Amino acid sequence: MNQIDINDSHYAEDELHEECGVFGVYDFDGNDVSSTIYYGLFALQHRGQESCGIAVSDTEGPKGKVLSYKDMGLVNEVFNPEKLEKLNGNIGVGHVRYSTAGSSSRENAQPLVLNYVKGTLGMAHNGNLLNAVELREELSYTGAIFQTTIDSEVIAYLIARERLNVPTVEGAVLNAMKKIKGAYSLIVMSPRKLIGARDPFGFKPLCIGKRDNAYFLSSETCALDTVGAEFVRDVEPGEVVTITKDGIKSDKSLCQKNTARCIFEYIYFARPDSKIDGMGVYESRINAGRILAKTHPVEADIVVGVPESGNPAALGFSMESGIPYGNAFIKNNYVGRTFIKPKQEQRESSVKVKLNVLKEAVAGKRVVMIDDSIVRGTTSARIVSLLKAAGAKEVHVRISSPAFLHPCYFGTDIPSEDQLIASGHSVDEICEIIGADSLGYLEVDKLSEMICGQTGYCDACFTGNYPIEPPKIDIRGEMG
Amino acid sequence: MNQIDINDSHYAEDELHEECGVFGVYDFDGNDVSSTIYYGLFALQHRGQESCGIAVSDTEGPKGKVLSYKDMGLVNEVFNPEKLEKLNGNIGVGHVRYSTAGSSSRENAQPLVLNYVKGTLGMAHNGNLLNAVELREELSYTGAIFQTTIDSEVIAYLIARERLNVPTVEGAVLNAMKKIKGAYSLIVMSPRKLIGARDPFGFKPLCIGKRDNAYFLSSETCALDTVGAEFVRDVEPGEVVTITKDGIKSDKSLCQKNTARCIFEYIYFARPDSKIDGMGVYESRINAGRILAKTHPVEADIVVGVPESGNPAALGFSMESGIPYGNAFIKNNYVGRTFIKPKQEQRESSVKVKLNVLKEAVAGKRVVMIDDSIVRGTTSARIVSLLKAAGAKEVHVRISSPAFLHPCYFGTDIPSEDQLIASGHSVDEICEIIGADSLGYLEVDKLSEMICGQTGYCDACFTGNYPIEPPKIDIRGEMG
Amino acid sequence: MNQIDINDSHYAEDELHEECGVFGVYDFDGNDVSSTIYYGLFALQHRGQESCGIAVSDTEGPKGKVLSYKDMGLVNEVFNPEKLEKLNGNIGVGHVRYSTAGSSSRENAQPLVLNYVKGTLGMAHNGNLLNAVELREELSYTGAIFQTTIDSEVIAYLIARERLNVPTVEGAVLNAMKKIKGAYSLIVMSPRKLIGARDPFGFKPLCIGKRDNAYFLSSETCALDTVGAEFVRDVEPGEVVTITKDGIKSDKSLCQKNTARCIFEYIYFARPDSKIDGMGVYESRINAGRILAKTHPVEADIVVGVPESGNPAALGFSMESGIPYGNAFIKNNYVGRTFIKPKQEQRESSVKVKLNVLKEAVAGKRVVMIDDSIVRGTTSARIVSLLKAAGAKEVHVRISSPAFLHPCYFGTDIPSEDQLIASGHSVDEICEIIGADSLGYLEVDKLSEMICGQTGYCDACFTGNYPIEPPKIDIRGEMG
Amino acid sequence: MNQIDINDSHYAEDELHEECGVFGVYDFDGNDVSSTIYYGLFALQHRGQESCGIAVSDTEGPKGKVLSYKDMGLVNEVFNPEKLEKLNGNIGVGHVRYSTAGSSSRENAQPLVLNYVKGTLGMAHNGNLLNAVELREELSYTGAIFQTTIDSEVIAYLIARERLNVPTVEGAVLNAMKKIKGAYSLIVMSPRKLIGARDPFGFKPLCIGKRDNAYFLSSETCALDTVGAEFVRDVEPGEVVTITKDGIKSDKSLCQKNTARCIFEYIYFARPDSKIDGMGVYESRINAGRILAKTHPVEADIVVGVPESGNPAALGFSMESGIPYGNAFIKNNYVGRTFIKPKQEQRESSVKVKLNVLKEAVAGKRVVMIDDSIVRGTTSARIVSLLKAAGAKEVHVRISSPAFLHPCYFGTDIPSEDQLIASGHSVDEICEIIGADSLGYLEVDKLSEMICGQTGYCDACFTGNYPIEPPKIDIRGEMG
Repeated sequence: MNQIDINDSHYAEDELHEECGVFGVYDFDGNDVSSTIYYGLFALQHRGQESCGIAVSDTEGPKGKVLSYKDMGLVNEVFNPEKLEKLNGNIGVGHVRYSTAGSSSRENAQPLVLNYVKGTLGMAHNGNLLNAVELREELSYTGAIFQTTIDSEVIAYLIARERLNVPTVEGAVLNAMKKIKGAYSLIVMSPRKLIGARDPFGFKPLCIGKRDNAYFLSSETCALDTVGAEFVRDVEPGEVVTITKDGIKSDKSLCQKNTARCIFEYIYFARPDSKIDGMGVYESRINAGRILAKTHPVEADIVVGVPESGNPAALGFSMESGIPYGNAFIKNNYVGRTFIKPKQEQRESSVKVKLNVLKEAVAGKRVVMIDDSIVRGTTSARIVSLLKAAGAKEVHVRISSPAFLHPCYFGTDIPSEDQLIASGHSVDEICEIIGADSLGYLEVDKLSEMICGQTGYCDACFTGNYPIEPPKIDIRGEMG
Repeated sequence: MNQIDINDSHYAEDELHEECGVFGVYDFDGNDVSSTIYYGLFALQHRGQESCGIAVSDTEGPKGKVLSYKDMGLVNEVFNPEKLEKLNGNIGVGHVRYSTAGSSSRENAQPLVLNYVKGTLGMAHNGNLLNAVELREELSYTGAIFQTTIDSEVIAYLIARERLNVPTVEGAVLNAMKKIKGAYSLIVMSPRKLIGARDPFGFKPLCIGKRDNAYFLSSETCALDTVGAEFVRDVEPGEVVTITKDGIKSDKSLCQKNTARCIFEYIYFARPDSKIDGMGVYESRINAGRILAKTHPVEADIVVGVPESGNPAALGFSMESGIPYGNAFIKNNYVGRTFIKPKQEQRESSVKVKLNVLKEAVAGKRVVMIDDSIVRGTTSARIVSLLKAAGAKEVHVRISSPAFLHPCYFGTDIPSEDQLIASGHSVDEICEIIGADSLGYLEVDKLSEMICGQTGYCDACFTGNYPIEPPKIDIRGEMG
Repeated sequence: MNQIDINDSHYAEDELHEECGVFGVYDFDGNDVSSTIYYGLFALQHRGQESCGIAVSDTEGPKGKVLSYKDMGLVNEVFNPEKLEKLNGNIGVGHVRYSTAGSSSRENAQPLVLNYVKGTLGMAHNGNLLNAVELREELSYTGAIFQTTIDSEVIAYLIARERLNVPTVEGAVLNAMKKIKGAYSLIVMSPRKLIGARDPFGFKPLCIGKRDNAYFLSSETCALDTVGAEFVRDVEPGEVVTITKDGIKSDKSLCQKNTARCIFEYIYFARPDSKIDGMGVYESRINAGRILAKTHPVEADIVVGVPESGNPAALGFSMESGIPYGNAFIKNNYVGRTFIKPKQEQRESSVKVKLNVLKEAVAGKRVVMIDDSIVRGTTSARIVSLLKAAGAKEVHVRISSPAFLHPCYFGTDIPSEDQLIASGHSVDEICEIIGADSLGYLEVDKLSEMICGQTGYCDACFTGNYPIEPPKIDIRGEMG
Repeated sequence: MNQIDINDSHYAEDELHEECGVFGVYDFDGNDVSSTIYYGLFALQHRGQESCGIAVSDTEGPKGKVLSYKDMGLVNEVFNPEKLEKLNGNIGVGHVRYSTAGSSSRENAQPLVLNYVKGTLGMAHNGNLLNAVELREELSYTGAIFQTTIDSEVIAYLIARERLNVPTVEGAVLNAMKKIKGAYSLIVMSPRKLIGARDPFGFKPLCIGKRDNAYFLSSETCALDTVGAEFVRDVEPGEVVTITKDGIKSDKSLCQKNTARCIFEYIYFARPDSKIDGMGVYESRINAGRILAKTHPVEADIVVGVPESGNPAALGFSMESGIPYGNAFIKNNYVGRTFIKPKQEQRESSVKVKLNVLKEAVAGKRVVMIDDSIVRGTTSARIVSLLKAAGAKEVHVRISSPAFLHPCYFGTDIPSEDQLIASGHSVDEICEIIGADSLGYLEVDKLSEMICGQTGYCDACFTGNYPIEPPKIDIRGEMG
C-alpha cells in the first residue's frame, strides 16, 4: 500500500544515502526533552532527509500518554517552537529517515507509536530486516494487520507478542531479537523505560551519552556533542540496554564473537566528528588518504577532495605524499534537498549548479582528485571533465574505498549490480569512462588498516561476503 | 496516544456536529474513481470537516496495491487535481471526519488502509462502538498493536482475525459484526470487492447507487445526486452488501426487527436534499414546522428560521399557521471552519460576525423564530437578543426537536447532561434564560409524525431509552 | 506589467462580481483598530474575494509610520491573530478586492500605502476611473512612475501633486476629484485624519458609523452592524468628509443635482442587510419580486429563488401572488473560491456540485423560479434543466432586473455586449434558449418603484444612458 | 512605512551580510531566460538570502509587457518550475536581497518594475545611496510618491525624469548617475535594452558574460560559470553599458581616476570562485593567509580555518609557514536561514549547533585558527573556547583582515562603532576577551599585497578614509 509521496522532487543524482538516524533521551529530573531531541536529530540530519519525527512521554504522568509528531521534510521544516512546546514529556525518542525499505510516504515516518497489551510503546529503528516478509506473513496468519510498510512495525508486533510471555519490555525486546534477522539499531520507549538494542552483528552504530541526570541513546556521537552530553560508551553488538530511574542495565546474552559493523559508516555515512565503536571517523578518512598515497602514488602538483566527504582523505593523501593540499571546488551550500530544476530545456547540469571549479587553483596543474566512492560513474565523469575544462593538465582519481561490486541488504541504498559501474568494468575501463589519467581504489585488504587494525566489520558490498545470507529475491526493490 | 493537532482554532460555539460520512465506488468499466469520490465527499462535507481521505485500488492491477491520501482539512483543501490524478484505481472508498471518538489528529484520519493475511483492505466507518475498549483489551491479549485511537482499527482487527476462519471477506465482516456493539455504517474495500455494512440497529444511514457500470455506497443520497448516480436502495439495518463484478449480493442474517435509526439525521445532521430510509429530510423538516404550528400555536406577524437548518421548519410553520414566512437573518457565508478570532479584546461576538438581523424585516413585529435544537442555550439567547435589538416586539421560539436530556453514545457529539440546558431546567426556565416570550419544543410523541409515521428510530437523547445499554463510564470523554 | 497570478483556479462560471469594498476607522481613544477592520472586511467579503489588506497608523505615534499587510486571498486566509496583533494603530483603512481594472496580482492589492511630500497616506478605493489612461499619460510627462495598474495610484499622484498647492490633505483630495472622471468611493488615511469621498455621481456607496469614541467609514452598513457601530449617515455623492479629533467636517462643494447611484447594488451586489442611501437592500428585493408578480403574473404551485440572491425576490413574488414560497435548491456551502475541478474527465457539472434540487419540493409542480439576472444564459439554462429533471411540470423564470444590454464602465464586471445574451436575442428567444416555459424581466421603468420611488440612479447597463460618456475604447479589456 | 515582516526568525548572531546580488540576461535568439536567471541567482544566493525576484520581458512582444515575481525567501523557496514557466521573455533581470537600507518586507523585494513616460522599466540594484534622503525630499517637492523604502525607487524616479530630457534610456541613466552619490551596481531593463551601470567609485562589482547569442550582466563571475557563460570583462567603475540587438555600447564619461572598490568583497563577501576586477577571490584569500604567516608567525602544530570563509587563508598560512593544514570544525550544513530555536530553555548554544570540533584533530595541539574578521567578538570567543574544550593546548587567532574600526555607509552591514570590539579595545585586550593565546590581524598596509598590488579600493571600515564624505546622521539606522 502506498500513500502518495508529494515530496518527490528530490535532488538525487548519483549519490548514496544513509537510511536513518535514531536519538533517545530520558531525563530523570523531569525536564521536557523535545527540544533536546530536536537538536539531536538536527545533528543526525545527514543520516536521513526525507522525514522525521519525535515522540515523547511523561514518566511521572498518566501511564501510556504519548505525544508525537512526524512528517515529511527536514527537521527544521517539520518542527517549529510551537510544535516542540506542545510535545511535553521527559522521555522521548526521535528519528530521521531516508527510505530504503518502505515507500517514502508520511505514513512510514517514524517513530512508530502504538498501544499494546501493556500500554504504549514508541520505537525508532535504523536498519533493514532480511526476514521481514516471512515474519509479516507469519504474523498475518495469527491475525496481525499492518498499516505501514516499515520493518519497525514487524518488530513492534514481535515485541507485543513476546510481552505476553515475559514480565518486562526489555525481555520482550530480547525475545523479538531472536526472531529477526538483519540490521537494526533500535530505541524503544515504554512509559518508564528507554531501551536501546543493536543487532548481534552490530551493522548500525548506537551509543550512550549522559548529561546531568539525563541519559541519551544516539546513532552517532556528534549528536551527543551538539546537545552537550558526554559520551559514555557504545552499545555493543547484540546488547540490550535498559535505562530506568534506577540506572542502566545491560543484557549481553545475544552478543556474539562475529560482528559485522558497516565499514561504509567510516568511509561516507557518518559525520566526520563522530566516533564509532572507538574509532574516529575523521581519523579513518585521513588514514584512507594516507594509504592511497602509499598504494597508488602519483606525481602531481595538488591534491583536492570532492566536497565534502573527499576532503579528509585528500588531506591524508597530501600529508603522506607531500603533494600540497588545495581546494579545487566551491560547493553551493544552498543546493539542498529542495533544489528544483526548472522544466525549461537547460544547458546547466546539476553538477555545475552544485560545484564550481576554482580555475586558478588547478589550471596547468596535475591534480589528484579524491572521492569516497564511485557508484554509477556519471558524477565522477562530470567532475573530471569540469577539472579538465578548468585547465587541469592531468587528473588522477583516487577513491577512498574499494570498488562497489555487490548490493547491500542491510539498509543502505547501494544499488543492484547492473547499476554499479565496477561490477561490469575493470579499473582501467572505469578510468577511461570517467576520463581520468589514472584511477586507484583503496584495496579491500587495507580497510582494517584504515580503522587502525580493527576487525569485525562488514565489507560485503566490496567482497560479497555477506555476514547473513542474503535473501533469494531482491527484497529491496519489492519494498522500496 | 496523541498526535499534536495543529488545526485547533475551530470556530465552535454551541453547535452539534455530525461525525462522519462515507462514500465508495466500484467502476466495472475500469475508470478511475478518485475524482468521483472527491465530488461525493464534497457533497458529504457537512458530515465532517476535520479531516478527509480517499483510498483506491485497481481491480485489474496487481492484487493488494492500494493508493491513499488523507489529511486534516476540508475536501478541497486536502485534495487538488495533481493528487487526485495520482490516485489511480477503479475501486475506492472515501471518508470525511469530525472526531467524536479518537483524537482529532492526522493519524486518525480515514480511510484506514491495511495489510492482513489475505492482502489489503481499505475501510471507512461512520459511527461509534460501545465495546471498543473491551475489544481492544481482548485483542491486545493475543498480541495486537494499535496505532490509532479510532474504532475502525478495532473492526479491522476483528475482520482480519475472522478471515482466518472463513473463506470470504464478507463472511469475516459478518462475523466481526457479531462481536461489535454500537453504531456503524461501514464501507470495506478489498482487492476485488466493495462491501457495505450497517449495524443491526441501523443508527447511521447508508445507501446504494448506480451510474452506468459503476456501483456506489454513500452515507446520503445527496452525494449520489452530485455524481449523477441513481439511487438504488438503502442498505438495511444489519445487512451486509457485497459488490463484485458479478453484481450485488446481500446477507441479511443479522437484520432484526428492532431498529434504532438516528432521528436527529432528519432534524439536523443530514442534508435536506437527502432521502434516508425512504423519508425525505426536507419534507420531515417541513413536517416538524407544521406540527409545531399545531402544538405550539402563537399569534405573530412573521415566521423566521435560524439559518440554515431552521428554514424548512419555519416554512412548514408558516404553511400550517398562515403566518407569513420571512427572512430575518443574513448569514455570512465566508465564516467557515477556518474563521479565526483575533486575540485583541473584542466587542464583536462570534454570533454577530456570523449572523446579522434584517431590521426592516422584524422591527415592530411579533416574530416566531424556529431553530432545530437548543444545546447549551447560549446561542439561542444571543439570537433572541439580536432580534429584540433589531426592534422585534415579541420573539416566540419554536424548536423543531424535543429537548435534549441525555448524552448520545452512538457517534454524535451531544454533550453530557450537565452541559445540556434542558437537563437542569424546565421549559419555562429555559424560555426566561434565552429571553424569549414563549418557547415550544416538538413533543417526543410527534417524532413519528414528523417522519410520516415511520417507527424504529432512536430517540435516546430525548428519552434516555437507549437501544443498547450505554457503557458505565462515559467512553466519549475517555476517547476524545 | 504583471505579477504572476498564482491563484488562478477560481470557480467562475456565469456570475457577476462586485469589485471592491472599503472600510476605515479612527479611534479617538487610541485603541488598536486592526481587528475591528478585520471584522469589517469580513462583512464586506462579498464585495471582493481576490485580495485584501489593512493599513494602520498611530495618530499619537511618530508621524508617518504606517504598518500594512495585504495579499491574495480571503480575509480569513490572509490574516491571522499574529498578523493582526502586529498591526498596531488607532487609525486604519481596509480593502477587499475583486479585480476589474488592474490585473489580479498581489502588487495590485490595496490599501495603497505611500510616502509623499507631507508624510504618508493610506488609500482604499472602490470604483473605476474613465480617464485613468489620460491621467497616467499626463502624469508621466512630468516624471511620474507607476508601480501598479490600479486607479488608486493615479488618484494618489493627483493628491500628492495638489498637496503642494493647498494647505490640507482634504483640500488636495477635493482638487484631485476635480480632475478624475468616473466612479470612486474613497477612504484616505493621513497621519492624523481619516477622509471619505464619494464621486459626484455617487456610483458607489459609502457611509459613516460611530461606536463610542470611534468613527467609521464603510462601503455598506452591514459592516457597521458587525462591529457594533451605529449608522450615522451616508456620505453624499460628491461629498468629502474629514474625520479628525475635532470631529467630522464636510465639504459639499462638488455635490451636484444629478446623481447616478448604481441600481445593481440593490439588485445583486450589496448584502441584503445593508441600507444604501436610505433604502434597504432586502426591502428593494422584496419589492422587485412583488412588481414581477404584478407585471409578469403566472399560475403556478410554488415560487422558488435561485440561492441566495434570488430568495428575497421570490418571497416578494409569493407575498404578492399568493403562490406558496418554497425551497427548491440546496446549495453546497463548501463550494468556495477555492473549489478545484479535478483534471479527469468528468460528468459532474459545476452547477450540480454547487446546487442540488429538492425533488419532492418541485416534482409534478408548476414552478416560478426567480433569479437576479441573466448574463450569458448558460447558468439559467442548467438550473432550469435541473428543475425539469427533478420533475417540475413547468418552469417560469422571472428575473428581478431588466435585461443586460450594455457594458458597465464604472467598476462592475458586466461584460461586453457580445457576451450578453439579451443583447442579441429577444425575450422569447432567451426563454427558449434557457428552456423555460415563460420568462419575464423587471421592466426598466419599474426600477424606481423597486427602491420606493427614489431616483438619481444609474441604469446604463440596461438602458445605455451613461451618466458620463463612456470611453471610445473599451478600457476594461485594456486594463484587466 | 512598513509591511509586516513575517520571516523574522533569522538565525543571526555575529556575522556580516552582503546586501544584494544582481543578474541580467538578454537572449538575442528569443529564448526564455527565466530559468537561466534562476540559476544565476542561485549562484549569487550568498549575497542575499532575504528576498528575491525575477522580471522578464519579450523584446519581440508587445512593448512594455513585463512579467515579474518576487517574494521573501531563498531562490528555491520563492520559485518553482510552474512559476518560472509563466515568466516568458527573452530579456530579464533578477535580484537577491539582504536588507540594509529599506525594511525587510515583501514590498521592498526587487527587481522594481514600473511604468513611466516611455514604457516599462525593470531595475535591480546593489548598493546604498548616501543622498537618498535629500533626493526623496527633492522629488517629493515636485509631486513624487514613494511606495517602497528602497533606494532603487529614487534612482527610478531620476531616470524617469531625465528621460523627459534625453532621447535614450541609457542617457537618462547617465544623467541620473550624476545626481546620486554612493554605491550602486545597477541593471536596468527597458523593452529593448539591457543596461548595466556601476558607480564612479566602483564600490560594488559588476561583470559582463556571453553565451551563444546571449549577453549577461552579473554581480560575480561565479554566476556566469554556473550558467555556462564566458566571462567577457568587468564593467568599469563609472561605466554605463548598453546591450541591444546591435551589440554592446559603452559610455565611460563618468569614469574617474579614483576608484574605491570594496576590499571586503575579497576578504569575505564574494564567492571564492569569483574573479573581481581581474583579481581572483580565492587567490586573494590564500595571499592573506601567506601574509599573516609572515607578519604574525607563531610556532604551532596545525592551522585550521573557521568554516567556510577562513579555510583558504588557513591554507595560505600553512603553505607559507609549513605548519600542517587541518580541519578542526565540522559544520552542520543543514543550519540554514530557517534554523529555528525552540522556545524551551536550552543549554545548546547556536554556535555548537552549527559547529562541532574534531577533538582528535586538535587535542594536545597548538592551533592556529584563521577567521576572516571579528565584529563583536562573541563568536570568536565561543569558537576559541570550543577548541580549548576539545583539548587544544594553545589557540593562536589570525584574522585575514584589519580590525573593523568604522561603520560602512555603502551597503554592507558593518555596524556602528560602539558595537565593534576593535573600536574600543586594543589587540591585546581583544585577545584576552576572546580567550586566545595570541592574536594577529592583517595590517592595513598589506591589503594591496593581498590583491597582488592592485590599488583603488575602499578600506574605510578599517581606516575611516571614506571616498565620499559620510552623512552627518547615521542613515543606516534610519533606513533599516
